[in-house]
Amino acid sequence: MKNLNSIAVLLALIVSLGALQGCSSMGSSDSREKVVMQVSDNDPAKWNLALNNAKNVQQMIGADKVEVEIVVYGPGINMLKLDSAVAGRIDEAKNANVKIVACENTMKGMKLTKDDMLANTSYVTAGVVELMKKQKEGYAYIRP
Amino acid sequence: MKNLNSIAVLLALIVSLGALQGCSSMGSSDSREKVVMQVSDNDPAKWNLALNNAKNVQQMIGADKVEVEIVVYGPGINMLKLDSAVAGRIDEAKNANVKIVACENTMKGMKLTKDDMLANTSYVTAGVVELMKKQKEGYAYIRP
Amino acid sequence: MKNLNSIAVLLALIVSLGALQGCSSMGSSDSREKVVMQVSDNDPAKWNLALNNAKNVQQMIGADKVEVEIVVYGPGINMLKLDSAVAGRIDEAKNANVKIVACENTMKGMKLTKDDMLANTSYVTAGVVELMKKQKEGYAYIRP
Repeated sequence: MKNLNSIAVLLALIVSLGALQGCSSMGSSDSREKVVMQVSDNDPAKWNLALNNAKNVQQMIGADKVEVEIVVYGPGINMLKLDSAVAGRIDEAKNANVKIVACENTMKGMKLTKDDMLANTSYVTAGVVELMKKQKEGYAYIRP
Repeated sequence: MKNLNSIAVLLALIVSLGALQGCSSMGSSDSREKVVMQVSDNDPAKWNLALNNAKNVQQMIGADKVEVEIVVYGPGINMLKLDSAVAGRIDEAKNANVKIVACENTMKGMKLTKDDMLANTSYVTAGVVELMKKQKEGYAYIRP
Repeated sequence: MKNLNSIAVLLALIVSLGALQGCSSMGSSDSREKVVMQVSDNDPAKWNLALNNAKNVQQMIGADKVEVEIVVYGPGINMLKLDSAVAGRIDEAKNANVKIVACENTMKGMKLTKDDMLANTSYVTAGVVELMKKQKEGYAYIRP
């Protein structure tokens, strides 16, 4: 009976600690800040604003302390085409570890292939689903 | 004494399991994905984009696995008037279980009554408060 | 052995209760609702919409039951200049305890000093970082 009791107590402790860990990991699984930005306007001023914002966030928080992702979809997709007005800045952003993601559903709708897009663009099937996913993972959402 | 101990151990287990359950239910009370979209621009291109996004999300995730709500307020309210440029698509979206919600405060300000609005529109007193509430309930927020 | 067991049981209970408390405090640390609004467009219609939204939220929830903050950055910064088209409404909002925050990075880029801005404006170094911080603190995000 004493042994049974001891086992039960141990079990209680293990379950309790599991609960504690489960809670804390829900808050933030790692210590880096996270932000996802949306570009869905066909407007180079908005593209520049998003890129400014990304740069700003990295400068303020420290580029190694924050994950920055820009999701580009809908009429915004022109931002990532080879002839983009901000092609140079996109390269800079990528070199600074800003993840830039194009929506393949949008590309399909506009008959664009990866050959039409800037090098090193990342791809997701649906930009909006990516924005949902990132918010669920604890990313702040910014819509410039 | 042994009985007392056993009761205490049981209590500890119950409390621990309660804690675990409390934690997991905070993450997401049910397994469906959730997204709320905002339409506040008087711009049919934005209306179409929001409706495209809703459709896309349902196609990608599965219409029965995601709750999609579009909150329409401010200058966006024309999207839901009888003469809306996207009246047909609004019907389609409703049939596909996309919830479409109009802001009554906006309607009051623009002297609109429910008779001026598309059939089957849902209503909330304040669109912005609805957007706050949904975010608090764990909905992702998308502003097309 | 009996004493040891009792201590272990007590420990289990304490840890369990700690876990429970940790969980609940993560939900919402205080009972007030919170919303942060973004103004980044150089468009008086958007400025008025944001101010309408702030007023609406206070009227619906109760001004003492909700924290409302408007973060102004990028091309939106003109909203807070001395010659702003909505200067009178900004004063009203501040008197109603809406916090209005200007981005100093934007001001620097546009060669604006605090002397160019409306009285009682609050300041943050980077508007986007403020928006991230507030979302992390549980504020809903509204982008009018």
